[in-house]
Amino acid sequence: MRDHSLPPAAVLWQNGRLRLLDQRRLPEKVAYLDIGTVEAAHEAIRTLAVRGAPAIGIAAAYALVVAMTAEPEPDAARFRSVLTEHARHLESARPTAVNLAWACARLLAAAERSADLSTIWAEAEAIHAEDRRICRAIGNHGQALIPENAGVLTHCNAGSLAVSELGTATAPLYLGHAAGKRLRVFVDETRPLLQGARLTAWELGAAGIDVTLICDSAAATFMAAGEIDLAIVGTDRVTANGDVVNKIGTLGVAVLCRHFDIPFYVALPSSTFDPDTATGAQVPIEERDPAEVLGDRAADVPTRNPAFDVTPAHLVTAFITDRGIVRPPFPETLVSLSG
Amino acid sequence: MRDHSLPPAAVLWQNGRLRLLDQRRLPEKVAYLDIGTVEAAHEAIRTLAVRGAPAIGIAAAYALVVAMTAEPEPDAARFRSVLTEHARHLESARPTAVNLAWACARLLAAAERSADLSTIWAEAEAIHAEDRRICRAIGNHGQALIPENAGVLTHCNAGSLAVSELGTATAPLYLGHAAGKRLRVFVDETRPLLQGARLTAWELGAAGIDVTLICDSAAATFMAAGEIDLAIVGTDRVTANGDVVNKIGTLGVAVLCRHFDIPFYVALPSSTFDPDTATGAQVPIEERDPAEVLGDRAADVPTRNPAFDVTPAHLVTAFITDRGIVRPPFPETLVSLSG
Repeated sequence: MRDHSLPPAAVLWQNGRLRLLDQRRLPEKVAYLDIGTVEAAHEAIRTLAVRGAPAIGIAAAYALVVAMTAEPEPDAARFRSVLTEHARHLESARPTAVNLAWACARLLAAAERSADLSTIWAEAEAIHAEDRRICRAIGNHGQALIPENAGVLTHCNAGSLAVSELGTATAPLYLGHAAGKRLRVFVDETRPLLQGARLTAWELGAAGIDVTLICDSAAATFMAAGEIDLAIVGTDRVTANGDVVNKIGTLGVAVLCRHFDIPFYVALPSSTFDPDTATGAQVPIEERDPAEVLGDRAADVPTRNPAFDVTPAHLVTAFITDRGIVRPPFPETLVSLSG
Repeated sequence: MRDHSLPPAAVLWQNGRLRLLDQRRLPEKVAYLDIGTVEAAHEAIRTLAVRGAPAIGIAAAYALVVAMTAEPEPDAARFRSVLTEHARHLESARPTAVNLAWACARLLAAAERSADLSTIWAEAEAIHAEDRRICRAIGNHGQALIPENAGVLTHCNAGSLAVSELGTATAPLYLGHAAGKRLRVFVDETRPLLQGARLTAWELGAAGIDVTLICDSAAATFMAAGEIDLAIVGTDRVTANGDVVNKIGTLGVAVLCRHFDIPFYVALPSSTFDPDTATGAQVPIEERDPAEVLGDRAADVPTRNPAFDVTPAHLVTAFITDRGIVRPPFPETLVSLSG
């Protein structure tokens, strides 16, 4: 794979130095923040300079390593208590981010085994390496589904910027592009927060992929014109029956794909399967501030702003995971290992 | 019908005085422009202070009357030549607006019959009255299709602001509301120009109708939740076979309606039928400036911005016209009278 076929990484770790791509400034400005303290990491996570569940987890793990570099190792009890204190503070930056708490817990568990810098350093690098491996596996499995000269639609940002590298929905695109496959990617702008316009279109373009930004409501017309051969999206959660919880607008894309007989794929790490929730109907949907929709316009219009929707399993052609291409009912091996 | 169940009119004509609602300032500010000259009308039309094909036509007709008020009538040749000069200038404000040229032509034809102020004054009022009658007829026919307690989805602005009053897609809603029917209207924000958010949500709300603004991509989730019982949209052109050319996003709404088994209606004056064009495939689709999508963000992302899409006839449950509810193949009487 050629280096120039990947966009700038969300998290950089170089000889003990942590740098985070400031995603608040994209796409206008590509700038990295040097993270020298837990406080700086807390601020970056809280203000969405770094976002995307895996990327937040990786950043938090490295931030704890950076913070512990100054700690004297001989005192194991003190090492663990300072690490715990830092972890608790970091977790408060985004209390609902599962990967943030999960990454902190992994570093604390490592310190229980051996309270020294090299152990937690290795654990943070392991978290990073695992995410890389997972994204690459998703990309390899998914790439086989993309024909030569394909038009691909994606929605929101399940891209490189949200993970270690490659992304989930975008991993098959990056690997296909790197392998010399010609493809054209249509990116929904993804109202109201425009993650497609600000992040996905930018990162695919930065990697040299042929990208076209469209309004969410224009996807149907490009499907009708035969310009879209498949859709790939990411997901926040897949329930036991295969229902897909993802960014608002995903359901609409899936329905359009069914109508126009276009394959609709969902890419995800197997850890995103939630075998303990039977169907999407049981998942509470976050409803966000109407100001995200209204902006600075007069705010006296009643507005609904659900952040996610539920795509029923029967609209999904296949799930692209790090463990292969699957469909419900999901294999026991997949479900038993996830969660 | 109670007066308070209609929003402020786009065009006001009171004792020879022309006032136009300045739609550029909506929804923040409800302000009228006094139009005392052809130049002022030209500016208002060119800068979209008044927009919507019928509203532009009505405004232009009255503006010509205002401009001719100062002309001495005894000299018929001079009256006609000054009127023609004013009309030509006014038409140049939006050269592609069919109704603008059509309204000017009607006033010129009236002046051919009799070159005096009262004749063109009456003609302008006739244009206005005809549009009122058409919108009211659409509303009366359409109202019968709306059940009590209905959730209604609409897209873009085919509303009162674009016509004399009542609108086309909105006419059944205003009349239903005035008749005491309970209904709840979901309004797509309609990217990229947000006519739904800026105009439709505002005008329905101003009339006291229960309105909820949503992102275009959220329509599917409200349909899936059973909150939408029917959709009504307007149209720019309906071809001989019943294909519907309308604002980008209309096709997506129609496909969603089919998937969720929800009636999808198109409201239009019978003059919007185009029997000379066989199908929607023959209609050139205007592609507009990517800056409408990108705004002030970095503009180096390749962007497609088609302003309209084509909804195939088979996705339309019925057409709501001033001459009744019709479906293709359209009755001879309708098609032969239109165009």
